[in-house]
Amino acid sequence: MKPEERYQHPQWWERSRLAYHQNELHIGRSKASEIAVQAGKPVFVYDAQRIQENLSHLHCSLEQQGVRHRILFAMKANRYLPILTLLKLSGICGVDVCSGYEVLLARQAGFCEEEVSFTGTAVSDADLDILQRHPKVWVNCDSVNMIGRLGSRCPGRAIGLRMNPNIGVGYNQSLEYAGNGTTKFGIYREQFEQALIAVEQSGLRVTGLHIHCGCGYLTPQLPFLQHALERLADFMAHLPTLRYVNIGGGMGVPLVARDQPLDLRQWSDIIARSFAHHDVEVWTEPGEYLVKDSGLLILQVTMVEKKLDTLYVGVNGGYNLYHEQMLFGIPTHIVPCRQPTAAESWQRVTIAGNINEAGDIWAQETELPVNIREGDFLAFLNTGAYGSANSSNHCGRGDFAEYLMY
Amino acid sequence: MKPEERYQHPQWWERSRLAYHQNELHIGRSKASEIAVQAGKPVFVYDAQRIQENLSHLHCSLEQQGVRHRILFAMKANRYLPILTLLKLSGICGVDVCSGYEVLLARQAGFCEEEVSFTGTAVSDADLDILQRHPKVWVNCDSVNMIGRLGSRCPGRAIGLRMNPNIGVGYNQSLEYAGNGTTKFGIYREQFEQALIAVEQSGLRVTGLHIHCGCGYLTPQLPFLQHALERLADFMAHLPTLRYVNIGGGMGVPLVARDQPLDLRQWSDIIARSFAHHDVEVWTEPGEYLVKDSGLLILQVTMVEKKLDTLYVGVNGGYNLYHEQMLFGIPTHIVPCRQPTAAESWQRVTIAGNINEAGDIWAQETELPVNIREGDFLAFLNTGAYGSANSSNHCGRGDFAEYLMY
Repeated sequence: MKPEERYQHPQWWERSRLAYHQNELHIGRSKASEIAVQAGKPVFVYDAQRIQENLSHLHCSLEQQGVRHRILFAMKANRYLPILTLLKLSGICGVDVCSGYEVLLARQAGFCEEEVSFTGTAVSDADLDILQRHPKVWVNCDSVNMIGRLGSRCPGRAIGLRMNPNIGVGYNQSLEYAGNGTTKFGIYREQFEQALIAVEQSGLRVTGLHIHCGCGYLTPQLPFLQHALERLADFMAHLPTLRYVNIGGGMGVPLVARDQPLDLRQWSDIIARSFAHHDVEVWTEPGEYLVKDSGLLILQVTMVEKKLDTLYVGVNGGYNLYHEQMLFGIPTHIVPCRQPTAAESWQRVTIAGNINEAGDIWAQETELPVNIREGDFLAFLNTGAYGSANSSNHCGRGDFAEYLMY
Repeated sequence: MKPEERYQHPQWWERSRLAYHQNELHIGRSKASEIAVQAGKPVFVYDAQRIQENLSHLHCSLEQQGVRHRILFAMKANRYLPILTLLKLSGICGVDVCSGYEVLLARQAGFCEEEVSFTGTAVSDADLDILQRHPKVWVNCDSVNMIGRLGSRCPGRAIGLRMNPNIGVGYNQSLEYAGNGTTKFGIYREQFEQALIAVEQSGLRVTGLHIHCGCGYLTPQLPFLQHALERLADFMAHLPTLRYVNIGGGMGVPLVARDQPLDLRQWSDIIARSFAHHDVEVWTEPGEYLVKDSGLLILQVTMVEKKLDTLYVGVNGGYNLYHEQMLFGIPTHIVPCRQPTAAESWQRVTIAGNINEAGDIWAQETELPVNIREGDFLAFLNTGAYGSANSSNHCGRGDFAEYLMY
């Protein structure tokens, strides 16, 4: 392949606020490598405007279909406080939380109780204590067990039931939250009657229904969503006090060149049609969708060295900073911060992290320009979700900075 | 299977200081569930005496073979400061570190520079700054690149060369650090001459050789170790100033009933024979071997509920507290803290963590007594290594306590 066939400008992932200008990758108005130099350590950089745009697109697509709705940011994707504050200030976004800790953090970031929706699993008494102290937080019960325990603490409380739609969808199988065999999440149709009895006995009221099918669906997977929403409708008939249906999160973003962005028009159309004959508000819990493509992890090249048949490019960060790839096989697209020229030759390389584990490989046999050097910066695209929030200090290499840029 | 065939006392993992007494699991003199009750959260409990015994067994096995040696605890396995202090006070243990952060932590825990051996990968300038400020720390260079960069900062410094033996061994393939195709670690034989030139040009001195083959070898894998050590001998002839060979870590512990403990007599015999004709000290870097079987993670049952065909037992902790199983498929043996009676019936269960991810399953289709209840405690054996040290705050569920018990 000739170099000019390999490298075309713009690249598939470039957009107005994430692009090469004057030979350097820019995110918003900032030069990516410059932020990393200033931070002096691995750095996550988030584009505030992109987050606002993603939120606004979701909101408008539902508005245009006339869907009464509520958007709840799945905080587990990114707990960086400036991001939570940005979303709070949007005025059109609450938060989805899944632990007692996240309830408290949501409140600390200024969300009022009514803007917080809790959907946890294997919920502990410590979690329930916190829910009890926040009586206006919306709680979805993930098991019959939880209905009983919440009911004995908070009689009369309005709850949602997290149902398992028995349909899974996601970037790949490991991210399917329902379907393909039994999963731990939610109440199955077979338990529904038992759940209603538990609600009755506990003196609770069901005002919501919740489902979540997986993580990372795009347009081709929309029929699965439609299917899942149809199943929800079956339950709705049994719940006269229903006020909202929460359709979960899981909307994905393009990760490789062949991916097309989720068609929000189709997405919101399915939602509108599914609930056209029901007087309910539709809640949705985007995590990745709001923040994943807003964020870059920027790492510095520490080594370029051929070992046997493999040219290794080592960087100053490992999978402990972003484990989606090693754990779930989700591809991370990696680009140099310095713009390659069209004439430049490319070479096969393996990009390796700095963790003392053999599996700590960012990309096997990918391509980088031949003149990549120590000190150069690489940008790891689409790392705005499940990076910093899941990071560990493995090998004492957990230090990083986060920047929300405007 | 009749219950009495299923449950036999003592279990394969029981030992004097980890056993059921008076119907309750004890670690050392403490009741496991009692510590968890007192902590009020997920808890790692380590048996100080077990760590001391493991260290002492290693030390004595090498002593008995007349091997001049040094034991360096691989701090990446567990950085809990009381454990580091315990090992420091043993008087027979230094530390193996792999990042600048770990160098500083070792010093902060009281280890002097000479007791610290550094073997990092994709080493950054920030790491090198810290190494430069600690001139007596032993440094193994993992690449030709690193030799040049260290040399320009620290001319005259004694270094070790981390060689890649091209032989891998471990609990499973994902934990092999050499062999089975090129890995990122160490200098390959094909680069050896180039490395010596770099040493010469940088004005460094090679006083050490280092290899590491993988993580989790037991007696059946010892021939691999022997093989790797033989390969080391080839390099030794070229290094007249050699003072030590560091044979890495990787010694495993039994994880399932059929595993036998590593035969230390055979292990040390291989080492003694490999270096019988060389005037070198042998350094070894046990991480797991010293602490893995000293530690339990104790979690509380939060839910027992049948969903379709599966009986789920939910607990108040997820894979973010111990990711060896989800990431590497290393089995975690899970036992109830309350001793099952011989007459008790057992049932197939799936033990699920409290992280909102479908893959957060501790054990699929394992067995627990039929009378397992919410509030009961389960002990996750052999979680003393790579648990707390690699934990994350995923879903805001990263809170835990650690106890070193005597």
